[in-house]
Amino acid sequence: MKPSVTIEYCPKCGWLLRAAWMAQELLTTFSEDLGQVTLRPGEIAGRYLVFLNDEVIFDRKQAGHFPEPKELKQLIRDKAFPEKSLGHSDSKSIKP
Amino acid sequence: MKPSVTIEYCPKCGWLLRAAWMAQELLTTFSEDLGQVTLRPGEIAGRYLVFLNDEVIFDRKQAGHFPEPKELKQLIRDKAFPEKSLGHSDSKSIKP
Repeated sequence: MKPSVTIEYCPKCGWLLRAAWMAQELLTTFSEDLGQVTLRPGEIAGRYLVFLNDEVIFDRKQAGHFPEPKELKQLIRDKAFPEKSLGHSDSKSIKP
Repeated sequence: MKPSVTIEYCPKCGWLLRAAWMAQELLTTFSEDLGQVTLRPGEIAGRYLVFLNDEVIFDRKQAGHFPEPKELKQLIRDKAFPEKSLGHSDSKSIKP
Protein backbone atom coordinates (compact mmCIF):
# COMPACT_ATOMS: atom_id res chain seq x y z
CA MET A 1 0.00 0.00 0.00
CA LYS A 2 1.49 3.32 -1.08
CA PRO A 3 1.56 6.16 1.46
CA SER A 4 -1.17 8.75 1.31
CA VAL A 5 -1.19 12.46 2.10
CA THR A 6 -4.10 14.47 3.48
CA ILE A 7 -4.24 18.26 3.52
CA GLU A 8 -6.74 19.66 6.02
CA TYR A 9 -7.39 23.31 5.25
CA CYS A 10 -9.69 26.07 6.48
CA PRO A 11 -12.28 26.68 3.76
CA LYS A 12 -13.54 29.89 5.36
CA CYS A 13 -10.01 31.28 5.25
CA GLY A 14 -10.00 30.73 1.47
CA TRP A 15 -7.25 28.12 1.52
CA LEU A 16 -8.78 25.63 -0.90
CA LEU A 17 -6.76 26.95 -3.83
CA ARG A 18 -3.54 26.77 -1.85
CA ALA A 19 -4.31 23.24 -0.69
CA ALA A 20 -5.19 22.13 -4.24
CA TRP A 21 -1.97 23.67 -5.58
CA MET A 22 0.02 21.76 -2.96
CA ALA A 23 -1.80 18.53 -3.82
CA GLN A 24 -0.76 18.97 -7.45
CA GLU A 25 2.83 19.73 -6.45
CA LEU A 26 2.97 16.50 -4.45
CA LEU A 27 1.23 14.36 -7.08
CA THR A 28 3.64 15.69 -9.71
CA THR A 29 6.80 15.07 -7.70
CA PHE A 30 5.65 11.77 -6.18
CA SER A 31 3.58 10.62 -9.15
CA GLU A 32 4.61 6.97 -8.79
CA ASP A 33 5.15 6.99 -5.05
CA LEU A 34 2.01 8.30 -3.39
CA GLY A 35 -1.22 6.31 -3.39
CA GLN A 36 -3.41 9.41 -3.12
CA VAL A 37 -3.70 12.96 -1.88
CA THR A 38 -6.85 14.06 -0.08
CA LEU A 39 -8.21 17.59 0.29
CA ARG A 40 -10.21 17.91 3.49
CA PRO A 41 -12.07 21.10 4.45
CA GLY A 42 -11.63 21.43 8.19
CA GLU A 43 -13.99 22.75 10.83
CA ILE A 44 -11.39 24.70 12.79
CA ALA A 45 -10.58 28.24 11.67
CA GLY A 46 -6.99 28.87 10.69
CA ARG A 47 -5.99 25.24 10.67
CA TYR A 48 -3.74 23.96 7.90
CA LEU A 49 -2.43 20.49 8.59
CA VAL A 50 -0.62 18.01 6.39
CA PHE A 51 -0.81 14.33 7.24
CA LEU A 52 1.36 11.52 5.93
CA ASN A 53 -0.90 8.54 6.44
CA ASP A 54 -2.28 9.31 9.89
CA GLU A 55 0.65 11.34 11.18
CA VAL A 56 0.70 15.14 11.19
CA ILE A 57 3.91 16.19 9.45
CA PHE A 58 3.15 19.90 9.12
CA ASP A 59 1.03 22.20 11.26
CA ARG A 60 0.80 25.82 10.16
CA LYS A 61 0.13 27.05 13.68
CA GLN A 62 3.15 25.25 15.08
CA ALA A 63 5.46 26.20 12.19
CA GLY A 64 4.31 29.82 12.08
CA HIS A 65 4.01 29.76 8.28
CA PHE A 66 2.47 27.86 5.41
CA PRO A 67 4.62 25.06 4.00
CA GLU A 68 6.55 25.75 0.83
CA PRO A 69 6.48 22.90 -1.71
CA LYS A 70 10.19 22.23 -1.24
CA GLU A 71 9.80 21.98 2.53
CA LEU A 72 6.85 19.62 2.31
CA LYS A 73 8.46 17.46 -0.36
CA GLN A 74 11.60 17.07 1.72
CA LEU A 75 9.53 16.12 4.78
CA ILE A 76 7.59 13.50 2.84
CA ARG A 77 10.68 12.21 1.07
CA ASP A 78 12.63 11.89 4.31
CA LYS A 79 9.83 9.94 6.00
CA ALA A 80 8.45 7.80 3.21
CA PHE A 81 10.99 7.66 0.37
CA PRO A 82 14.44 8.29 1.86
CA GLU A 83 16.23 7.01 -1.25
CA LYS A 84 14.43 9.38 -3.62
CA SER A 85 16.20 12.39 -5.12
CA LEU A 86 14.16 15.57 -5.37
CA GLY A 87 16.44 17.29 -7.88
CA HIS A 88 16.27 21.05 -7.54
CA SER A 89 14.14 20.72 -4.42
CA ASP A 90 16.83 18.75 -2.68
CA SER A 91 19.07 21.37 -1.12
CA LYS A 92 18.84 21.73 2.63
CA SER A 93 18.10 25.44 2.62
CA ILE A 94 15.00 27.21 1.36
CA LYS A 95 17.25 29.88 -0.12
CA PRO A 96 19.01 29.06 -3.42
CA MET B 1 -19.86 11.36 8.61
CA LYS B 2 -20.02 13.56 5.50
CA PRO B 3 -19.82 11.84 2.11
CA SER B 4 -16.48 11.75 0.35
CA VAL B 5 -15.53 11.83 -3.31
CA THR B 6 -12.55 10.14 -4.94
CA ILE B 7 -11.29 10.91 -8.42
CA GLU B 8 -9.12 8.17 -9.90
CA TYR B 9 -7.25 9.50 -12.91
CA CYS B 10 -4.58 8.29 -15.33
CA PRO B 11 -1.40 10.20 -14.50
CA LYS B 12 0.39 9.04 -17.66
CA CYS B 13 -2.46 10.51 -19.71
CA GLY B 14 -1.76 13.89 -18.09
CA TRP B 15 -5.10 14.08 -16.31
CA LEU B 16 -3.89 15.31 -12.94
CA LEU B 17 -4.72 18.93 -13.74
CA ARG B 18 -8.20 18.02 -14.90
CA ALA B 19 -8.81 15.92 -11.79
CA ALA B 20 -7.53 18.69 -9.51
CA TRP B 21 -9.75 21.23 -11.26
CA MET B 22 -12.76 18.98 -10.72
CA ALA B 23 -11.83 18.51 -7.05
CA GLN B 24 -11.84 22.29 -6.63
CA GLU B 25 -15.18 22.61 -8.42
CA LEU B 26 -16.72 20.06 -6.05
CA LEU B 27 -15.14 21.50 -2.91
CA THR B 28 -16.39 24.96 -3.90
CA THR B 29 -19.96 23.90 -4.64
CA PHE B 30 -20.22 21.41 -1.77
CA SER B 31 -17.97 23.28 0.65
CA GLU B 32 -20.09 22.45 3.70
CA ASP B 33 -21.43 19.13 2.44
CA LEU B 34 -18.50 16.96 1.45
CA GLY B 35 -16.10 15.55 4.01
CA GLN B 36 -13.21 15.34 1.57
CA VAL B 37 -12.15 14.90 -2.03
CA THR B 38 -9.31 12.54 -2.88
CA LEU B 39 -7.08 12.57 -5.96
CA ARG B 40 -5.85 9.09 -6.74
CA PRO B 41 -3.40 8.36 -9.56
CA GLY B 42 -4.54 5.10 -11.09
CA GLU B 43 -2.55 2.25 -12.58
CA ILE B 44 -4.83 1.63 -15.53
CA ALA B 45 -4.27 3.69 -18.68
CA GLY B 46 -7.22 5.82 -19.80
CA ARG B 47 -9.22 5.32 -16.65
CA TYR B 48 -11.05 8.26 -15.13
CA LEU B 49 -13.45 7.23 -12.41
CA VAL B 50 -15.37 9.28 -9.86
CA PHE B 51 -16.48 7.60 -6.65
CA LEU B 52 -19.04 8.84 -4.15
CA ASN B 53 -17.95 7.03 -1.01
CA ASP B 54 -17.21 3.57 -2.46
CA GLU B 55 -19.63 3.70 -5.37
CA VAL B 56 -18.53 4.56 -8.92
CA ILE B 57 -20.81 7.38 -10.09
CA PHE B 58 -18.93 8.29 -13.27
CA ASP B 59 -16.75 6.18 -15.58
CA ARG B 60 -15.21 7.96 -18.56
CA LYS B 61 -15.01 4.74 -20.58
CA GLN B 62 -18.67 3.97 -20.01
CA ALA B 63 -19.88 7.53 -20.56
CA GLY B 64 -17.71 8.10 -23.62
CA HIS B 65 -16.58 11.52 -22.37
CA PHE B 66 -15.08 13.31 -19.41
CA PRO B 67 -17.59 14.63 -16.89
CA GLU B 68 -18.46 18.30 -17.02
CA PRO B 69 -18.67 20.00 -13.60
CA LYS B 70 -22.42 20.51 -13.95
CA GLU B 71 -22.98 16.85 -14.77
CA LEU B 72 -20.92 15.64 -11.83
CA LYS B 73 -22.44 18.12 -9.40
CA GLN B 74 -25.94 17.02 -10.37
CA LEU B 75 -25.00 13.35 -9.93
CA ILE B 76 -23.53 14.00 -6.47
CA ARG B 77 -26.38 16.27 -5.43
CA ASP B 78 -29.02 13.76 -6.56
CA LYS B 79 -27.39 10.92 -4.63
CA ALA B 80 -26.11 12.63 -1.51
CA PHE B 81 -27.87 15.99 -1.10
CA PRO B 82 -31.24 15.76 -2.90
CA GLU B 83 -32.56 18.91 -1.19
CA LYS B 84 -29.66 21.11 -2.29
CA SER B 85 -30.07 23.70 -5.04
CA LEU B 86 -27.18 24.03 -7.45
CA GLY B 87 -28.21 27.43 -8.83
CA HIS B 88 -26.98 27.89 -12.38
CA SER B 89 -25.82 24.27 -12.52
CA ASP B 90 -29.31 23.02 -11.84
CA SER B 91 -30.92 22.83 -15.23
CA LYS B 92 -31.44 19.36 -16.64
CA SER B 93 -29.63 19.98 -19.91
CA ILE B 94 -25.96 20.70 -20.47
CA LYS B 95 -26.96 23.30 -23.04
CA PRO B 96 -28.15 26.69 -21.74
